[in-house]
Amino acid sequence: MKNALLVLLTAACTLSLQAKIVTKDVEYQQGGTTLQGYLAYDDATTSPRPGVLIVHQWLGLTDYEKGRAKQLAELGYVAFCADIYGKDSRPKGVAEAGPLSSKFKSDRTLLRARVNAGLDQLKKNELVDPKRIAAIGYCFGGTTVIELARSGAELNGVVSFHGGLDSPTPADGANIKCKVLVLAGADDPFQKPEDLDAFEQEMRDNKVDWSITFYGGAVHAFTQPNPGFSNPGVKYNEKADKRSWQAMKDFFAEIF
Amino acid sequence: MKNALLVLLTAACTLSLQAKIVTKDVEYQQGGTTLQGYLAYDDATTSPRPGVLIVHQWLGLTDYEKGRAKQLAELGYVAFCADIYGKDSRPKGVAEAGPLSSKFKSDRTLLRARVNAGLDQLKKNELVDPKRIAAIGYCFGGTTVIELARSGAELNGVVSFHGGLDSPTPADGANIKCKVLVLAGADDPFQKPEDLDAFEQEMRDNKVDWSITFYGGAVHAFTQPNPGFSNPGVKYNEKADKRSWQAMKDFFAEIF
Repeated sequence: MKNALLVLLTAACTLSLQAKIVTKDVEYQQGGTTLQGYLAYDDATTSPRPGVLIVHQWLGLTDYEKGRAKQLAELGYVAFCADIYGKDSRPKGVAEAGPLSSKFKSDRTLLRARVNAGLDQLKKNELVDPKRIAAIGYCFGGTTVIELARSGAELNGVVSFHGGLDSPTPADGANIKCKVLVLAGADDPFQKPEDLDAFEQEMRDNKVDWSITFYGGAVHAFTQPNPGFSNPGVKYNEKADKRSWQAMKDFFAEIF
Repeated sequence: MKNALLVLLTAACTLSLQAKIVTKDVEYQQGGTTLQGYLAYDDATTSPRPGVLIVHQWLGLTDYEKGRAKQLAELGYVAFCADIYGKDSRPKGVAEAGPLSSKFKSDRTLLRARVNAGLDQLKKNELVDPKRIAAIGYCFGGTTVIELARSGAELNGVVSFHGGLDSPTPADGANIKCKVLVLAGADDPFQKPEDLDAFEQEMRDNKVDWSITFYGGAVHAFTQPNPGFSNPGVKYNEKADKRSWQAMKDFFAEIF
């Protein structure tokens, strides 16, 4: 009987402790540039746990990605938002975001270096089990996590939410060591059919463990309630947002 | 303290009761033909619960579908395997399955009548909540559950596992009242690209709530360990089997 009571009390304490999410900005370097990421984790325990890297949209690291980091911390992961652009390169709106994201999409070597710097930062966190790592990304970040996989990075899996899938170097698919999950809008006008075909062929040619889901009625940026501009091809879709988040959780349950 | 013990005892009893899965053959009629379906449910409670119709592959109602029915009963659903071909039309192998499945795929009116007869049978079971109904199907059955939706049947959702998606009457997409989930092999040689394109257009044109997932490396019949014949385009894929089953469970969690 004492044991039963102890179990109940422990459960109650655990529940209250789990709500303590710690967040902080973290500065780090890549190629002489100072980057400023954002860390979130549950302070209730000190035991090593899986780490999830989050890569931002074309607007850079915003409250949107920080919110996702907190959600992931509540699920029990250490979440780290990478900064691809740099601490001093925070676009104020889409007019600045366009050229910045294009710069990195045109220079995949630099893009890979920046995202790998974020990955290294996450892996060396003492709360993270470096053998259980995933990376997720939205739009520009969805492109970036696929590029992270193509760089040959050591991690368990990547999840691209409405990210572009094009590759200037499809032979680099041979470097992919992790599982790949793509979550896409079935009506995304920014997803070119020829890029999609080439991506699928790249996955096939290299026997990657991959899946892709298309959400009917969903266009670009379907997980983003405030995309920052108005365009009929860019719209939040609550169903696709919830379904894709669940798909990510299932993927994590499999790879961790 | 007494309450704590009671909770533990109740939990233990519930666990032991949940294992009691009842199964039985059920005869029913459609258009003068006797059909023989198969019912599975958990006998632990008498409270109404969601019902899941299962539609068989081209080989007819076999131990494969019965096994799925038992799995669904263990998840807490009333599962009913429909019989599309008839009690006296059980193919002994693929040589007999080919013409039989073709007969029904060529006569969608008859196919719809047969699958709706199965749906009615499930709905009138006293353990079933007729407002919470789904239908799932494999290969030929995957085609059939989409056809069930196109018939305008009242149910919450359908799940097609590696089913053909072609339609001789795409305008019937306008009848669809339920959610549609398609789980497909990315390398299924029996899935014609033109059928896939037409299906997606049908879903779009009619604003159906739909999603499709393609599992990389999976060919036709990826959930079927014993397809009954040898063909490089037909092969069990354990990962795709598990992932698609999880996707179905997530879908049920959403629609029920």
